[in-house]
Amino acid sequence: MNGLPVSWGAPRPERADAARNRAQLLATARQMLTESGPDQLTMDALAERSGLGKGTVFRRFGTRAGIFQGLLDEVERGLQEQVLSGPPPLGPGAPPVDRLVAYGRARVRWLMENTEIARFALDGRQPVPGGSQTPASQMHIRMLLRHMDLGGLNVDVLAIQLTAALDGPLLLYLSTDALANAGPQVEQNLGAAWQDLVERVCRP
Amino acid sequence: MNGLPVSWGAPRPERADAARNRAQLLATARQMLTESGPDQLTMDALAERSGLGKGTVFRRFGTRAGIFQGLLDEVERGLQEQVLSGPPPLGPGAPPVDRLVAYGRARVRWLMENTEIARFALDGRQPVPGGSQTPASQMHIRMLLRHMDLGGLNVDVLAIQLTAALDGPLLLYLSTDALANAGPQVEQNLGAAWQDLVERVCRP
Repeated sequence: MNGLPVSWGAPRPERADAARNRAQLLATARQMLTESGPDQLTMDALAERSGLGKGTVFRRFGTRAGIFQGLLDEVERGLQEQVLSGPPPLGPGAPPVDRLVAYGRARVRWLMENTEIARFALDGRQPVPGGSQTPASQMHIRMLLRHMDLGGLNVDVLAIQLTAALDGPLLLYLSTDALANAGPQVEQNLGAAWQDLVERVCRP
Repeated sequence: MNGLPVSWGAPRPERADAARNRAQLLATARQMLTESGPDQLTMDALAERSGLGKGTVFRRFGTRAGIFQGLLDEVERGLQEQVLSGPPPLGPGAPPVDRLVAYGRARVRWLMENTEIARFALDGRQPVPGGSQTPASQMHIRMLLRHMDLGGLNVDVLAIQLTAALDGPLLLYLSTDALANAGPQVEQNLGAAWQDLVERVCRP
């Protein structure tokens, strides 16, 4: 399975000044987040703190959730690198089922570390998270499923279902309080349940 | 399986005047939604249109997403009634796996009819949708799973995963454009994929 292409979505090309503004805004946003938490990180506050103006913030992120999506994309790169070129089973070189199990466990851990940013990146008014691109996580899961023998299953829809089964508990159904009170246990339960789910769904 | 208790979350008791205000606000919100779509339905606009004041709107719904959650709870009651006392396999009287398949297909159809309201009810700043209660859908799925023989599976976490696999595609990953362009096909694909998923996960 070594050397399979992993379809992480390519970032949209940006003009140099746009990219520079975006990097500056994200750096400022990270700093504001550390200092005073997500509630204070609004479009207006970011414009004022960065000195770049509301128009620029709006063009770079569109909505407040877009700022958090930008922060999330940044921290997601660390996970992407492990998937692309880290050691197996998360990285290339292991059977696809093992990679899928390892990916889910790594994703749960990553999402727990970034739950707050990920939840603020949710925006029901936007068509899909992060714009119109298929999320990188979903593309990776679909790529792995395509290399399994799953009979007549609709692999495209299964990839969406499994992405939702992986992200959904932390984004949609588990409260931040529940996570704060039982962190490691939740991570272990979700990781083990992901492995059970994958093994049941993907057995021939 | 007839007569099993179905744990739809009991609504919080409300004082009579609070309940009356809430009903009036929801009726106004429904009207505004029909007339001018979800973008125009804000806390301020609802306060002005209903003549009940911003304080009342805030106390009844908390956030803008809370208004949409209120609307969603109302339309969800129709689905709940079918589950509680409609004909099998959605209602009582069929084996739990068949009920779970039927429930998912009905939920996909229902969610497609109400995607816009459901997406606007999403609010990453709130701990869980609709407050701190476990969603009715998740409780129903868990109740059905508890009546199956699933070996050592963690049924509580599996219920969360399956709820997310059911709601997630429409809430998190499928754009409104994609739904508008291929409605019936999407419904059929998601329904069939739900059945495949349940049959793989729940077979002994």
